[in-house]
Amino acid sequence: MSKILVGIVMGSDSDLPVMRAASDVLGELGIPCEVVISSAHRIPDKTATYARTAVERGLAVIIAGAGQAAHLAGVIAAHTPLPVIGVPLQSGPLNGVDALYATVQMPSGIPVATVAINGAKNAGILAAQIIGATDLEVRAKVAALKAKLARQVAEKDALLNELGIDVYLARLKK
Amino acid sequence: MSKILVGIVMGSDSDLPVMRAASDVLGELGIPCEVVISSAHRIPDKTATYARTAVERGLAVIIAGAGQAAHLAGVIAAHTPLPVIGVPLQSGPLNGVDALYATVQMPSGIPVATVAINGAKNAGILAAQIIGATDLEVRAKVAALKAKLARQVAEKDALLNELGIDVYLARLKK
Amino acid sequence: MSKILVGIVMGSDSDLPVMRAASDVLGELGIPCEVVISSAHRIPDKTATYARTAVERGLAVIIAGAGQAAHLAGVIAAHTPLPVIGVPLQSGPLNGVDALYATVQMPSGIPVATVAINGAKNAGILAAQIIGATDLEVRAKVAALKAKLARQVAEKDALLNELGIDVYLARLKK
Amino acid sequence: MSKILVGIVMGSDSDLPVMRAASDVLGELGIPCEVVISSAHRIPDKTATYARTAVERGLAVIIAGAGQAAHLAGVIAAHTPLPVIGVPLQSGPLNGVDALYATVQMPSGIPVATVAINGAKNAGILAAQIIGATDLEVRAKVAALKAKLARQVAEKDALLNELGIDVYLARLKK
Amino acid sequence: MSKILVGIVMGSDSDLPVMRAASDVLGELGIPCEVVISSAHRIPDKTATYARTAVERGLAVIIAGAGQAAHLAGVIAAHTPLPVIGVPLQSGPLNGVDALYATVQMPSGIPVATVAINGAKNAGILAAQIIGATDLEVRAKVAALKAKLARQVAEKDALLNELGIDVYLARLKK
Amino acid sequence: MSKILVGIVMGSDSDLPVMRAASDVLGELGIPCEVVISSAHRIPDKTATYARTAVERGLAVIIAGAGQAAHLAGVIAAHTPLPVIGVPLQSGPLNGVDALYATVQMPSGIPVATVAINGAKNAGILAAQIIGATDLEVRAKVAALKAKLARQVAEKDALLNELGIDVYLARLKK
Amino acid sequence: MSKILVGIVMGSDSDLPVMRAASDVLGELGIPCEVVISSAHRIPDKTATYARTAVERGLAVIIAGAGQAAHLAGVIAAHTPLPVIGVPLQSGPLNGVDALYATVQMPSGIPVATVAINGAKNAGILAAQIIGATDLEVRAKVAALKAKLARQVAEKDALLNELGIDVYLARLKK
Amino acid sequence: MSKILVGIVMGSDSDLPVMRAASDVLGELGIPCEVVISSAHRIPDKTATYARTAVERGLAVIIAGAGQAAHLAGVIAAHTPLPVIGVPLQSGPLNGVDALYATVQMPSGIPVATVAINGAKNAGILAAQIIGATDLEVRAKVAALKAKLARQVAEKDALLNELGIDVYLARLKK
Repeated sequence: MSKILVGIVMGSDSDLPVMRAASDVLGELGIPCEVVISSAHRIPDKTATYARTAVERGLAVIIAGAGQAAHLAGVIAAHTPLPVIGVPLQSGPLNGVDALYATVQMPSGIPVATVAINGAKNAGILAAQIIGATDLEVRAKVAALKAKLARQVAEKDALLNELGIDVYLARLKK
Repeated sequence: MSKILVGIVMGSDSDLPVMRAASDVLGELGIPCEVVISSAHRIPDKTATYARTAVERGLAVIIAGAGQAAHLAGVIAAHTPLPVIGVPLQSGPLNGVDALYATVQMPSGIPVATVAINGAKNAGILAAQIIGATDLEVRAKVAALKAKLARQVAEKDALLNELGIDVYLARLKK
Repeated sequence: MSKILVGIVMGSDSDLPVMRAASDVLGELGIPCEVVISSAHRIPDKTATYARTAVERGLAVIIAGAGQAAHLAGVIAAHTPLPVIGVPLQSGPLNGVDALYATVQMPSGIPVATVAINGAKNAGILAAQIIGATDLEVRAKVAALKAKLARQVAEKDALLNELGIDVYLARLKK
Repeated sequence: MSKILVGIVMGSDSDLPVMRAASDVLGELGIPCEVVISSAHRIPDKTATYARTAVERGLAVIIAGAGQAAHLAGVIAAHTPLPVIGVPLQSGPLNGVDALYATVQMPSGIPVATVAINGAKNAGILAAQIIGATDLEVRAKVAALKAKLARQVAEKDALLNELGIDVYLARLKK
Repeated sequence: MSKILVGIVMGSDSDLPVMRAASDVLGELGIPCEVVISSAHRIPDKTATYARTAVERGLAVIIAGAGQAAHLAGVIAAHTPLPVIGVPLQSGPLNGVDALYATVQMPSGIPVATVAINGAKNAGILAAQIIGATDLEVRAKVAALKAKLARQVAEKDALLNELGIDVYLARLKK
Repeated sequence: MSKILVGIVMGSDSDLPVMRAASDVLGELGIPCEVVISSAHRIPDKTATYARTAVERGLAVIIAGAGQAAHLAGVIAAHTPLPVIGVPLQSGPLNGVDALYATVQMPSGIPVATVAINGAKNAGILAAQIIGATDLEVRAKVAALKAKLARQVAEKDALLNELGIDVYLARLKK
Repeated sequence: MSKILVGIVMGSDSDLPVMRAASDVLGELGIPCEVVISSAHRIPDKTATYARTAVERGLAVIIAGAGQAAHLAGVIAAHTPLPVIGVPLQSGPLNGVDALYATVQMPSGIPVATVAINGAKNAGILAAQIIGATDLEVRAKVAALKAKLARQVAEKDALLNELGIDVYLARLKK
Repeated sequence: MSKILVGIVMGSDSDLPVMRAASDVLGELGIPCEVVISSAHRIPDKTATYARTAVERGLAVIIAGAGQAAHLAGVIAAHTPLPVIGVPLQSGPLNGVDALYATVQMPSGIPVATVAINGAKNAGILAAQIIGATDLEVRAKVAALKAKLARQVAEKDALLNELGIDVYLARLKK
């Protein structure tokens, strides 16, 4: 796979440390993506153009992360028939509740697939699941990722059982 | 005064019963305005064009009312240097808290002058105050409106004092 | 198209009046779906089995609607690599904020694509967009639906412009 | 007493520093317990099996701690007739309000006995109270624990009375 | 079984229409209970005495329901080593969020087993589960109740499958 | 004045650093007070006795500070006809919103005069105002305190005017 | 007693149906009061004058009720050394949470004694308790009122015990 | 331009580090302003006088910043026909939600143009937009400021595209 399938857009470069988790997990799953800084409010025309041309450029899914009055995902969804995933970001005094409401409470006709506040990694996995809805190879990779997560939990439980709480916690701190 | 100075935009005709209060009070103050239905999500290009051409059409202020993930005021503010007043509307299960956060929590550089949830009348008065910041005739009309409100409170207090609680409340119910 | 692609699951038949909007819009878009009542808490094994067998039965997307401590979408997402759309339902004294948090705040690894509280119609559209991420025919239908919504807003605006507020509102009430 | 009566389950080893307080207080009360890491979302089948076999393994109560969209206690309650105590954990930007709602707002038929956010120690005491509802020896130990807490408050009050605020606070800081 | 095992206390007779669900489900499960009106604030001494004498009168569990600044469950828990179940009631402008916080956020040492806002039926079931933690006959009754709930969901699903949405909803309305 | 007129009660010695502000301001106003640690939940009988004997010991006002499910002020108000001032304390993950609701939302008949979260200094001033409702000497001291606060604001404004923002802020940091 | 001791102020005559409960209970306790409509925002000078002259007119306590951005109690407290009781009123989409925060979260130096949302009756009782802090006759009346409330609860409990739930509820409905 | 057009008022000098952003951006736009410390509660008369004389002193807009029960903007709006911009400040345990509600939820007749919590820079820009509603030179400066912001976003995006995530983030940290 080499064509870019997922666009990851964020409103500011201060969002990059959180949003890069989407890019990282897509890389891990072998799905090419691009990372773009574009603000719904500061450069609205560029944002609209990005969304409007997404189909012709071959994107299948767009992920948009923004904080506070987070309009980015909604604005993009207004300009494309592609599925848009919204990541409400925790920034400012309301801790992301404002971004969550501004992202998820979309009016009828223009949905945004919202994940948890700061849930950029899950946004990447959801993008892969969306591609995997019809692409069996990608779906298998998602299933493998989930199996790995399950194994990690089981291993931790076994280790805790073996070591006991005190030794386990002492190791955790190192 | 006959040139239209204030544009009142709302996302849906279901917002009209609340938003008309802005139009009504501007009419009372003799400030011409226009009322427009235009959705940030359903017809984003028309909304952007409306905002972008506001200056050349001679508008001085834009009022935007929307509910839930209320992006309308922010989208308009992104496309004009004019002051934009946002009216968060009470609709849906969150009672307008979502609309309040989505309207007021704008990022640095693109303010929206937000009034109370469903505060359409105050949006109209604020638009008049903005015009009155430099237009002394309009300012005088705003001052007169506030004086009228003050008189009404004083008259009610006098009447309550005269009638007592029981008779006053009985009249109120009629 | 005749194979069932979307499963719509809800926790109780009292959710049906809201959740049917997902089924209706999918019908309008020509995408076959099935409607199932299955509770994450009351019949957890059946729910798990439904999710685990979704791939082999040919589903591409699952929509899950639940209220209060809304675990249904998360439980289903735990058992399938398919994308799962969660609809938080407004029920009980917290008006759906509990369901929103319980649906959207999923841990890393297991995303739920959350739409607005009671946003069942948008869940159906999002399911179509997900299928349309790779199916161009479905994508065209989604684009047509959005164009219809845009036209409706424009028509209402034109009508309001023609009739004025009072006559328009009088018609709306009828 | 040597048979394990209480199972303490948590979704991640990052919950262990908080959840160990349940284990500690049960140890103090002489009630054997086991500590398990098992995620409702990442290894749902193991979690379901754990809950379903709890009765035959002789457990009397299960304590489950989880954060964010905290489904763990509810999922366990769905698979056992034993009383299940839920500990909503403070993690992520919503500070545990999401976990509280996701734990306590259970549907009719499947209760979760919810304690305070991060209230792991109280979960352990409640487990002991539940066993003590019919076991008089355990009940006496609970009563003794509460009497000790009462004495501590009384001693602090006496010391404050003796030392005065400034000296007392200076000692507290050491 | 004829000895009274569960005390159901509420702060006001206006709580009775909601709280009677606890009494009803306990009756259905064959567990004798008593229903008492006693306010933590209006008759604090009677409330304290009720809690303090609960053990000697043979109670095993106490259920307390209250609204707003709901102190009833906490006050009772302060006076008895028995497990206390709190039912936050929806009353007044905050819809029960105040009662939820006032019931669940208990300090270390004095837990209250909190159920959902207005969750009186679940409080009754939880009381039975607590008794069933050591009484196998009661536990079997709880298991049977849960199995009945599961069957009801399955039957509704089958009926919906048979009738389709429109006919099913038409029947529901009757 | 030498008789103790105000009792300041708090649930834990960890509340002392905040609650001492009430004692300090009462000292500044020359009103004798006592400081007591007494928990509504851990030593309920001592707390009830303290409240019940307040009148005979000559107290005129009681201040009670507590966090989380803050019942202390309500419990005291239940046992005395004296005015009770409640200070909701910021502790735990809900930042004092739980304590605010648990303190202020009292049922009809048993008011608690609630001040801001962590508002211990204001609780002391309010206690003085209550005594000053009939004691003109105390009232004059309250008026003098408020005048001092007013002067401080005016002095800061004059200094800012003189120094400019940069120099003023540089001084503030020292 | 015939001198007016308590002033009850409200921002609008629409607050009268709730606020009259303060007047009613003060009447019941034999404490003369006056009822005034005066808005902090619409007639700020009259409101300030009312507060500033309260001492010379002989008032001992002022009760202020307002909704939404409820500034009335704070504005009055800014102009008088008398104790001011704030009643946050439930009006508008935020159900009184806005009024609660705007009333209780006062800055250091200017307390407002806040009661529950719509807690006008408790405001009246608190005013009586404040007067009773030094007036033993009034204090005795408050104690008698509380004793009456206690008797009412006890009588309801006895009646419920006698009649059983079904008959009691049937009577309640009549 | 040399006449002072904008007054920036704040309740305490502790608000200065946040509020100076309004002054800074107005300086950048060449609009003279004054900065004043004046509390609605501690020196209400000075605050009222400041607002009442604003017109005669030639001000066109007033910006008011306050935290908690933030009455400052509302009190000023009550005394002037000029447009008043409110900046809710994040201070205390409620993180500015209290200040937001107390600022924005103004009653009909007395609007406050509210910006985001801590949104002092946007308050300055909004003040410029208000002056620019009729002053074309100021409007052009606002448009230039917005264009600069747009360019900065575009430059960051280009740089990220050139450097890649890792190098970009490494530079950001420096």
